[in-house]
Amino acid sequence: MSITTPAGFRAAATAAGLKSTGATDMALVVNDGPTHASASVFTSNRCKANPVLWSQEVVKDGTVRAVVLNSGGANCYTGAEGFQTTHAVAERVAEKLGAGAIDIVVCSTGLIGLTNPRQNLLDGVDVLADGLGEHGNAAAEAIMTTDSVSKQVVVEGPGWSIGGMAKGAGMLAPQLATMLVVLTTDAVVGPDDCDTALRAATRVSFDRLDSDGCMSTNDTVTLMASGASGITPSLEDFTEALQRACVDLAMQLLADAEGADHEIAITVLNAVTEDEAVEAARSVARSNLFKAAVFGKDPNWGRVLASLGTTDATFDPADLDVAMNGVWVCRSSTPHEPPDKVDLTARDVSVTIDLKAGDARATVWTNDLTHAYVHENSAYSS
Amino acid sequence: MSITTPAGFRAAATAAGLKSTGATDMALVVNDGPTHASASVFTSNRCKANPVLWSQEVVKDGTVRAVVLNSGGANCYTGAEGFQTTHAVAERVAEKLGAGAIDIVVCSTGLIGLTNPRQNLLDGVDVLADGLGEHGNAAAEAIMTTDSVSKQVVVEGPGWSIGGMAKGAGMLAPQLATMLVVLTTDAVVGPDDCDTALRAATRVSFDRLDSDGCMSTNDTVTLMASGASGITPSLEDFTEALQRACVDLAMQLLADAEGADHEIAITVLNAVTEDEAVEAARSVARSNLFKAAVFGKDPNWGRVLASLGTTDATFDPADLDVAMNGVWVCRSSTPHEPPDKVDLTARDVSVTIDLKAGDARATVWTNDLTHAYVHENSAYSS
Repeated sequence: MSITTPAGFRAAATAAGLKSTGATDMALVVNDGPTHASASVFTSNRCKANPVLWSQEVVKDGTVRAVVLNSGGANCYTGAEGFQTTHAVAERVAEKLGAGAIDIVVCSTGLIGLTNPRQNLLDGVDVLADGLGEHGNAAAEAIMTTDSVSKQVVVEGPGWSIGGMAKGAGMLAPQLATMLVVLTTDAVVGPDDCDTALRAATRVSFDRLDSDGCMSTNDTVTLMASGASGITPSLEDFTEALQRACVDLAMQLLADAEGADHEIAITVLNAVTEDEAVEAARSVARSNLFKAAVFGKDPNWGRVLASLGTTDATFDPADLDVAMNGVWVCRSSTPHEPPDKVDLTARDVSVTIDLKAGDARATVWTNDLTHAYVHENSAYSS
Repeated sequence: MSITTPAGFRAAATAAGLKSTGATDMALVVNDGPTHASASVFTSNRCKANPVLWSQEVVKDGTVRAVVLNSGGANCYTGAEGFQTTHAVAERVAEKLGAGAIDIVVCSTGLIGLTNPRQNLLDGVDVLADGLGEHGNAAAEAIMTTDSVSKQVVVEGPGWSIGGMAKGAGMLAPQLATMLVVLTTDAVVGPDDCDTALRAATRVSFDRLDSDGCMSTNDTVTLMASGASGITPSLEDFTEALQRACVDLAMQLLADAEGADHEIAITVLNAVTEDEAVEAARSVARSNLFKAAVFGKDPNWGRVLASLGTTDATFDPADLDVAMNGVWVCRSSTPHEPPDKVDLTARDVSVTIDLKAGDARATVWTNDLTHAYVHENSAYSS
């Protein structure tokens, strides 16, 4: 049950010596076709890592043959030499597969500003290319950094399937929360439909995960469609399945936040637009004061209202309702049920905000702000 | 050396029983004239506390007779009853001074969603009005919450002076970082010039203090001019002195952040506009990852670049320079001096970012993200 579950895909993993622990640190996922349709989304950070700068060009024609990934070094802000390393890795993969380098997506994760050892990566590619097989599980493990478990998903359609693997997110990945995701499918889906479905799916999954408000330089999500099942699902069915796969992986990322004590789902109801619902929910997800209060099991709804007040979302500041774990602690912007009715001992916390302004809604997921978060992120590179 | 140093001002402090510790928790600052010119700036949070809603109306005509302040309760999100409490306090002060309630600014700080005990406040006003004198120091102490020291300043002009007191800010004031500031002067300054000078001074002082990115519901800065010196400084001289007073108080707020190990000055050079310099610097000041790295004494410049990449400021992502404590660890977006040359053991940390896009500059001040911050903010209301 991995990225090699859909027909037409092979994968491999190896230890190229990038991680000081000797653990596996490179993975290769190859689409053997018959089709090579693809779509990708990347970090919106303007300061992008070299592999992102490369891969953005690769994906433009909607054709991708393989994704090569490494942990142990982000290859970000390493200058021209770093870009040449990314290029050289793509060239080597292409050579081994008999493809063009311009069809090879490259992903890296790890510390910024450190040059990845090029020869290790090139030697690693040779080992990967020779070891390709149904090794999706091994690939998912090789891309882990501080993840405590690998994240994988399979969603089945009638006669076709989607596989996915992910690493990182928020407190799990102190070094800028790099999130790398590879999705595979044997459904027959063209590049345009891949793009439409992927954007729809990421919009309500990875884009709504806001663990610590920090945006990575390396985030990459790549979907490859082999068409090997011979079955063409409707775009609607495919999108729905892809969305399920992405939400599943996003929740796995959220749940593996080692630094976190709580997973918090912030749902905004009755906003004028979905964008305003997201803006309002995200403001709460980014409030250090609110997140520290949840860590302290303190249902501090004042910090929710204060966060909402920083947004441009449409609402009457004197008429807001807030519930925590289903207890409406605030109605019409005044105290309602006693906050001590809210039990915040369980990991899952829900915050519901009623803006009373329209009929749109959205949920944003975050974690609490904990001692472990501070510890992990202050000690990571030393 | 306090807010009662300028001629024409009296102050008082008392313990009204709002704080469970029995410490002083109310203060009154009265302008005895001959002029009662004034200007104020308030939090830009749309969710404002009752005292802010009241005081915004009070200051509109440029005339303020007195500021009454309490710690021990924010009177925010307490509904109509809370607003009536604020109004009743202003009425009682006005009655005791023989003034109109519409000339009385009210400030509150403390927990959100708790109703302040009205009778305690009214009794407190009686005590304050009867005890007015040169008690600026006592007033500065009465408005403290988790502040470890009171914050005061005096700036002398030729024949006139400015006094100031402040409480709160950032990690010091876990409950939404409420910042209350009262400024007094015996210079002859009309309401319009008060407003011009105050906005110019706060723009480069309190507005550039971004301790934890959270915006208070109660922030208030009020300037009162008594004209008692009989001397009319130029607007330029007065603004310069007021700016010095505000920067001094802002630095005192920053330095008293108990949860913090470091004060961090983030300076952006060569931006296209000052606004873009502030936007770029603020993005770094709000990066939990960067702030946790400083706590860990880790000169992690990658996190600086990653923050800059989330802004709309004009720059070439491939041509950024970054220095920490004067060591240029990054030139042209690639590693330059070794990061281990940066010694982050001292409290003061400077980050300098060269955008190479124009000739504007700005500095934003923040603190590091520490275990003590998480502790204070997770335990405050319990």
